[in-house]
Amino acid sequence: MSTEGASGRAVDLVRSAVLEDLLHVSIALSATHDRDDLLRMILTEARRLTGAQAGSLYVQRGEHLEFAVAQNDAVDLSEAVELLEGMRLEIGGDSVAGFVASSGRPVNVPDSFRLDSGAPFRICRDVDLVVGYRTQSVLALPLTCPGGEVVGVLQLINRLDGGGRVIPFDDAGSSPVTTLAAVAAVSVHNALLAERLAQAHRDTIVRLATVAEFRHSDAASHIHRMSELCTITGRRMGLPEEQVEMIRSGSVMHDIGKVGIPDSILLKPAALTPDERKIVETHTLIGAEILANPDSPLMQTAHDIALYHHERWDGQGYPHRLRGREIPVPARIACLADVFDALATPRCYKKAYSVEKVLAIIKEENGKHFDPEAVKALLAILDDVMELYELK
Amino acid sequence: MSTEGASGRAVDLVRSAVLEDLLHVSIALSATHDRDDLLRMILTEARRLTGAQAGSLYVQRGEHLEFAVAQNDAVDLSEAVELLEGMRLEIGGDSVAGFVASSGRPVNVPDSFRLDSGAPFRICRDVDLVVGYRTQSVLALPLTCPGGEVVGVLQLINRLDGGGRVIPFDDAGSSPVTTLAAVAAVSVHNALLAERLAQAHRDTIVRLATVAEFRHSDAASHIHRMSELCTITGRRMGLPEEQVEMIRSGSVMHDIGKVGIPDSILLKPAALTPDERKIVETHTLIGAEILANPDSPLMQTAHDIALYHHERWDGQGYPHRLRGREIPVPARIACLADVFDALATPRCYKKAYSVEKVLAIIKEENGKHFDPEAVKALLAILDDVMELYELK
Repeated sequence: MSTEGASGRAVDLVRSAVLEDLLHVSIALSATHDRDDLLRMILTEARRLTGAQAGSLYVQRGEHLEFAVAQNDAVDLSEAVELLEGMRLEIGGDSVAGFVASSGRPVNVPDSFRLDSGAPFRICRDVDLVVGYRTQSVLALPLTCPGGEVVGVLQLINRLDGGGRVIPFDDAGSSPVTTLAAVAAVSVHNALLAERLAQAHRDTIVRLATVAEFRHSDAASHIHRMSELCTITGRRMGLPEEQVEMIRSGSVMHDIGKVGIPDSILLKPAALTPDERKIVETHTLIGAEILANPDSPLMQTAHDIALYHHERWDGQGYPHRLRGREIPVPARIACLADVFDALATPRCYKKAYSVEKVLAIIKEENGKHFDPEAVKALLAILDDVMELYELK
Repeated sequence: MSTEGASGRAVDLVRSAVLEDLLHVSIALSATHDRDDLLRMILTEARRLTGAQAGSLYVQRGEHLEFAVAQNDAVDLSEAVELLEGMRLEIGGDSVAGFVASSGRPVNVPDSFRLDSGAPFRICRDVDLVVGYRTQSVLALPLTCPGGEVVGVLQLINRLDGGGRVIPFDDAGSSPVTTLAAVAAVSVHNALLAERLAQAHRDTIVRLATVAEFRHSDAASHIHRMSELCTITGRRMGLPEEQVEMIRSGSVMHDIGKVGIPDSILLKPAALTPDERKIVETHTLIGAEILANPDSPLMQTAHDIALYHHERWDGQGYPHRLRGREIPVPARIACLADVFDALATPRCYKKAYSVEKVLAIIKEENGKHFDPEAVKALLAILDDVMELYELK
């Protein structure tokens, strides 16, 4: 209900402006698909609406809340990054956020240093201690979907008045930030659903691509390492993260064409004749056929990797003897990762080579077999590579 | 800007109420994931906001607008269903919606019977003629995303005053329905994105599952027919549409375990020995292994179908001799569809049986090999089945 007279009129106008603002924020949140961008935007807008100097956001995962994002205008949070990122709060535990998630109700703490002794939660000061901050007033809101599901908790800290003094937050009840929380809940829910869909898709690709190499004994582990190697190399090369993710999934299918190679050749314990080798080489063409007419960028990437991952930088590869930049970037990365993995792990025809020997071969083939940019990136992340191969 | 005095005050209050209403609608739209429900809800809310007696909604697909939903409080639209569902409007063509989509601007027609002769569009009366209606005032709005992309067009028809007379719509400029259109655009965009993700996932499953049967010549067409047969049978059995879709995709992988069967047995031109037959039967167990530890309902369905699609209703199947309702429903459906397809199509060891012979066998095995409920459903949709097999 609005108050009477001229000041009531002003209140109404402000209320309209706030609602209009919320609608625009609502549209912007719905249109944001990157999970991290979305969570940062929610916290930023909530702080703007309430005048909070700091805040954090937690997302529900199973029986816990996981820390997602923190902001603080007064102090640098970088010292507390590890502490924050490791934070998992029990739902129903004695943290403020855990209590809010289990009760589904907001909590408003005017002064955390004068907390009622009967409060069903306690104020954790671990982060404050690390970064040198003083959490005083707190407003914590559940992010509740229309169906009642709590997808996270928004925690606002230290509301400031015009003079920079910390004051209590308004009660959540009729506050615009409660509406923002409702809008945010749906957006977070949608982002998590989309993430789950993408994850399920990737899971399918890995399962079924592994199948294609079912006849090799250690195909699954080769696929995993090779995909990871492509991912970290591509990322180091500065490719957009979206493309890196497509290379991660697409590279899984690089040898899918091997299903078309008869057992008698694929599983032959002795060396192959030149004719048999020619038949094995057709796995690139068979793979391209399986992945033909791609209807998504992911499938296009998978197609290019399957077809071209045996092309060489110097043009001496197969099946089309492409050279240099004629070869799509994902295939150049996959080529390096495929050979690296073959060298660094035991195969039926050889033991694993030593790190020194693998690196010597890679460097020797730089600019011949391999794209120099890919080699450079791989060498720059050697620590991560070693870790992947459990070589350190 | 609001007007002065008491009436201005009232305007402000109404404005706040409308904005609050819009925020709730915005949350409800974002939380709606079913495309059809979403589009119906958008049109309903837009008509409520503007007092429109009728309306329709079009969604952009490539260079065209496709009809999505129509509503009319005055007449029954069922006579016009075919006409409406076939409607594809050229973007930039001379339809109102086509013009709105290409220009990105709203169109307000106070009286369509007095249309300015220079108007860059014309009013189509085809639907009016079929259902006996008189489209008079029209407001058509683009559904424009924050990035500028037009995902559809909302067309509102015949605004009514309190006495039921048709009056012109307010100009779109400052109208709440313009805000609704912006909210709706993002929701539609998100729904289309999710649809594309699901479609890409299904595409991957079909491609890679086909691979698993690469060594059979006609595996791909078998997979397609069998998946479709499972879909229409499951739907007829009254399963929830979500489960039907999981059976559609999951059934594609029913024989994935055959990758583990050696060429020498799988491709043997002669009859199999009992020992060889035992080996072929392990494709159910291998399939279950490939699809083990499912992390989505789809994979769980795929796992159950792969493992149990050779179980029989009477308990005489393999690998676990489950019986009756012990066998998961998707596997019971897949079992029937798999046998039906084997009977109705030519295989290397036999010609296709006649429809009469196939049906005689299915009926004979009702309650023995097959779940009676699945058989009943299949027989009830025989026309669709015949169409699938191009038998009519």
